[in-house]
Amino acid sequence: MTPKAVPKIDIKKLWDMIAEMGNIGKSAAGRTRLALSEEDLAARRLLVQWMKDLKLNVQMDAYANIWGTRTGLDTAARPVVIGSHIDTVREAGMFDGVMGVLSGLAVVHAMNEAQIETKRPVAVISFTDEEGGHFLAGGLTGSRLLAGIINLEPLKTKCNSQGLSWTEALNKSGFIGKDHLEPHAYLEYHIEQGPVLVDENVQIGVVEGVVGLSWLRATFRGEANHAGAFPMNRRRDAGLAAACSVVELNRLAFELGHGTVVTPGQLVQHPNLPNIVPGEAVLTVDIRQFDPDLLDRGIVKLREILEKSAAQHGVTVEIETLSRTKHAAFPKDMVSLVENKAHELGYSTKRMPSGAGHDAQIIHTMCPAVMIFAPSKDGRSHCPEEYTSPEDVGNGANVLLHCVLELAE
Amino acid sequence: MTPKAVPKIDIKKLWDMIAEMGNIGKSAAGRTRLALSEEDLAARRLLVQWMKDLKLNVQMDAYANIWGTRTGLDTAARPVVIGSHIDTVREAGMFDGVMGVLSGLAVVHAMNEAQIETKRPVAVISFTDEEGGHFLAGGLTGSRLLAGIINLEPLKTKCNSQGLSWTEALNKSGFIGKDHLEPHAYLEYHIEQGPVLVDENVQIGVVEGVVGLSWLRATFRGEANHAGAFPMNRRRDAGLAAACSVVELNRLAFELGHGTVVTPGQLVQHPNLPNIVPGEAVLTVDIRQFDPDLLDRGIVKLREILEKSAAQHGVTVEIETLSRTKHAAFPKDMVSLVENKAHELGYSTKRMPSGAGHDAQIIHTMCPAVMIFAPSKDGRSHCPEEYTSPEDVGNGANVLLHCVLELAE
Repeated sequence: MTPKAVPKIDIKKLWDMIAEMGNIGKSAAGRTRLALSEEDLAARRLLVQWMKDLKLNVQMDAYANIWGTRTGLDTAARPVVIGSHIDTVREAGMFDGVMGVLSGLAVVHAMNEAQIETKRPVAVISFTDEEGGHFLAGGLTGSRLLAGIINLEPLKTKCNSQGLSWTEALNKSGFIGKDHLEPHAYLEYHIEQGPVLVDENVQIGVVEGVVGLSWLRATFRGEANHAGAFPMNRRRDAGLAAACSVVELNRLAFELGHGTVVTPGQLVQHPNLPNIVPGEAVLTVDIRQFDPDLLDRGIVKLREILEKSAAQHGVTVEIETLSRTKHAAFPKDMVSLVENKAHELGYSTKRMPSGAGHDAQIIHTMCPAVMIFAPSKDGRSHCPEEYTSPEDVGNGANVLLHCVLELAE
Repeated sequence: MTPKAVPKIDIKKLWDMIAEMGNIGKSAAGRTRLALSEEDLAARRLLVQWMKDLKLNVQMDAYANIWGTRTGLDTAARPVVIGSHIDTVREAGMFDGVMGVLSGLAVVHAMNEAQIETKRPVAVISFTDEEGGHFLAGGLTGSRLLAGIINLEPLKTKCNSQGLSWTEALNKSGFIGKDHLEPHAYLEYHIEQGPVLVDENVQIGVVEGVVGLSWLRATFRGEANHAGAFPMNRRRDAGLAAACSVVELNRLAFELGHGTVVTPGQLVQHPNLPNIVPGEAVLTVDIRQFDPDLLDRGIVKLREILEKSAAQHGVTVEIETLSRTKHAAFPKDMVSLVENKAHELGYSTKRMPSGAGHDAQIIHTMCPAVMIFAPSKDGRSHCPEEYTSPEDVGNGANVLLHCVLELAE
């Protein structure tokens, strides 16, 4: 590696790209680029154009993941891959995913400007359907397909609200290719989506891994009775059992501590009328923790709370596990690399797990992977209020650049 | 009054009528005769036919309430009126309302069979839209119109799910008349819709009045955040504040005692997704109590609970009063009349308020009124499982008959 100049991210150019992509699918309520929708395809076309402008070799794999590769001196060497996604949830902000992909382009731009040659190729990848909401295919779909964790078969029956399946949308997209690269290492730069870095006034989140999680669904069944004519001591109120669980689950999260989060995010009651005692209540609980032993213990206690709440109020409860994802611990040397490069650039850092799922936890099964977090204002995400300042965007992109330079040699 | 024989309810005939009307609007899930729907109109036509078979003078008033009058010796005297309703909720049982109206016909039949003449006329009335669910017009609609508590004007904008207004449905019904009678006294015989009479093995509920009630709606507003990335101690979870309220409101009902019921029957969360902290929760609470002072104190404490739960979890709460109905205390001599006649017939009795609303609480503003309750199996109501045995139906109808004979002289 013989740099002609000190490489540096062009923050203004990166910011302008983020803003320009943020206009695709935009409305007053945010921007919506559901995976493989018209809006997502428009964003993909813009991304491909920008990759070509940077002289990257653009190719698609069989899952419509988009790869843009900068050649290396050793053409047989596996590439250092920078990735994330450009699809969004409904009414999203403009940073989630997009910042990571476009920072990859900014890294390439900085290397081009500084006329840097590396031994290994450097590739930027944008994964298909990271968010998962459009076809309810579970999210991280393009990366899971690439890593061979799932195949296309079950996606033939995952349909969007118009009845179009994931695979039909893939075939219609015009973004199917054949080949993919085998990554040497993977780096993902993302917004934190939580308030910790801002609260603690830290510039760079050094992500040690991704938490394990489980979703459980508790169906409480009691008896729907007349709100006026049915005495309190005879009721079997499913809504009360669910409410009791929600209160106790909040206590459980604090009791477990060490960053455990427990979220009873979804509650649906029947008949859900003002003057009828709820006969049924369906509560979905999300629990996350980086330490796998603590997560296991937490799930046992969570189930105990659901069962005890039901028994206390004379209702039954059926508990189903909807999903269970193991934690991903990134390799220590990859974590140290991010931390050291941040310190060399003069940035404050904090080691932390990611509470949100990311493609990195999947690609981590293929090669050494790591993530870098940028601060999120007020911790807001998946909403138009999502915001990271140009300076903070630039800091993380510069850390990314220097990690890539070291890994690509 | 010169009875030719001892009058007695023909229980088999009454039971058969209840069953026959129960077939109108019937499906596997119960019977549905929403007010002024085709099914309700079919039931009305059958009722009118049965009234004519009993030689009653049938007339409608301006609100489609159906009156069937048996003449008295003093044609100028105000009638003793027996009433209830034949409209139903969705997927209903066959007793609620119907048993009261058809027991009125059974009383007339028994008087006819025994060739009894009374000084006062005896009228049977079936009120329009007691249930209130079809047009969301508030229920007790026909009786409130008759008593002059409301007029037709606001009903012009109360529409069903097809966009048909209450007044349009009234005009299309073919059941509009002009004149109504001024009742001398009003009796309503109804199923308890609660388990108290069965639990205590009592045959006749002597209804002292109808509880006062209030509906309050609490809108908790916090912040929707990522279930993984947002730490517990930074959350403003509107769902948690609502759940905390539900638990405390249950305690409040027992603390207030004296039959107070508090029902948080309806809870709607936003965005209500498994992996998002609930940003908003809208909880509707129904509180009922016969003692007006205790109800007032209960409402104050209820609001305190909602506000305290919100404050504890860092969310705001907006509380609206959706409805407030004063209790109705029936005249002591009417209550004693029911009790005495039941005892004369050898039935066990229990004095109790009605926790459910009934037309009697409205007609109570026009003339002395009272209600009689029959036991409800398991306290079930507003569902196909609603059941009162033929013997229990007959007991209350015989009490009704003897009360009418005394009041009509």
